[in-house]
Amino acid sequence: MSEFEPTTQNRIRRIPERGHYDKAVIYPIIDEALICHVGFVENGVPYVIPTIHARSGDKLFFHGAKASRMMKQIASGATICVTFTLLDGLVLARSTFHSSMNYRSAVIFGRGRPLTGEAEKMAALEILTEHLARGRWPDARPPNAKELNGTAVAELTIESASAKIRTGPPGDDEADYALPIWAGVLPIQQQYLPPIDDPKLNEGVTAPDYIVNYSR
Amino acid sequence: MSEFEPTTQNRIRRIPERGHYDKAVIYPIIDEALICHVGFVENGVPYVIPTIHARSGDKLFFHGAKASRMMKQIASGATICVTFTLLDGLVLARSTFHSSMNYRSAVIFGRGRPLTGEAEKMAALEILTEHLARGRWPDARPPNAKELNGTAVAELTIESASAKIRTGPPGDDEADYALPIWAGVLPIQQQYLPPIDDPKLNEGVTAPDYIVNYSR
Repeated sequence: MSEFEPTTQNRIRRIPERGHYDKAVIYPIIDEALICHVGFVENGVPYVIPTIHARSGDKLFFHGAKASRMMKQIASGATICVTFTLLDGLVLARSTFHSSMNYRSAVIFGRGRPLTGEAEKMAALEILTEHLARGRWPDARPPNAKELNGTAVAELTIESASAKIRTGPPGDDEADYALPIWAGVLPIQQQYLPPIDDPKLNEGVTAPDYIVNYSR
Repeated sequence: MSEFEPTTQNRIRRIPERGHYDKAVIYPIIDEALICHVGFVENGVPYVIPTIHARSGDKLFFHGAKASRMMKQIASGATICVTFTLLDGLVLARSTFHSSMNYRSAVIFGRGRPLTGEAEKMAALEILTEHLARGRWPDARPPNAKELNGTAVAELTIESASAKIRTGPPGDDEADYALPIWAGVLPIQQQYLPPIDDPKLNEGVTAPDYIVNYSR
């Protein structure tokens, strides 16, 4: 897949060797992340809102209530920043200075538009539902006309993007390796526990495989 | 603890019953979150950057490289938005429309200032290190003069804040409870795996209790 051109906006300036501009690196981070943080500007003030997203090609999809400030901003065509962060571990160096985290993050910039046609809204909601739990859309009751009408859906075209990744053990100053201080990585993992049935579940209905064996 | 006044900026407008303005609700979310997402505006464009934070009273602390765009913005005194998100579960309703997530999130607004004195910088770095792993500061090699000089540290005063929380099972439309569709919650948990020793670890040095039994 092609690359995004590093610009003033998306160039990784701190520790540039951790920076990536390839879709092949950036898009899997977007897809693995359950949620993202959407940044927009209103009256000169920054807002950062966590929300569910889904990606298809170079498009991101979002949904929300019609009155949602975030949805209005995404649909407005203003430049939006969307950030995706996966935490992989605490990195404990011998020195506090070199202590860090292992992570995979992606920052994208783009402009959005509202989806208004019933078919395009329905298609985006399917992608969003499948992003959360692949296999759910064919199982669940789809939106009816009233729900579809009450839901704002927007599409954002990814115009610029970068990823920043840190992996591996700590890197200490040469002199510090002699210190009798423990150093290493404490791995972090998003774990899914066994599903909890809705207390109002109909008798005989059991959790589907895509929930019992959920993974991302 | 006192409350933050709901304003145009911080009021939870969508599903207001999920909104909270009490420090007693907001601050534990900030403290449990390993990282946050910092939002700022540069040349009218929003930026959202994941970073490590720590809180003490109504102050948040951040650190980074001196040349970091984020650190310059936090230190500039401009209004910054910082968002903290804890994911607790996927909420699978019978209808896609009522499907959701269980989460605890906090959004704060404030203005920062750079910390410049050695003592105040060192105190903030201790709070940041202890936020990541309580007990680490007394164990690790503290910053030396050169490292301290090369690290930008900023303090941000929380001026406005809100939390949004969803818990519990899905809420479906009355008619949908009759559908033979599984519904429930898939709980999510941030799990810490056994620590991985640095390959260059000195013989006989073992991981401390606060790492082996790490929890937040």
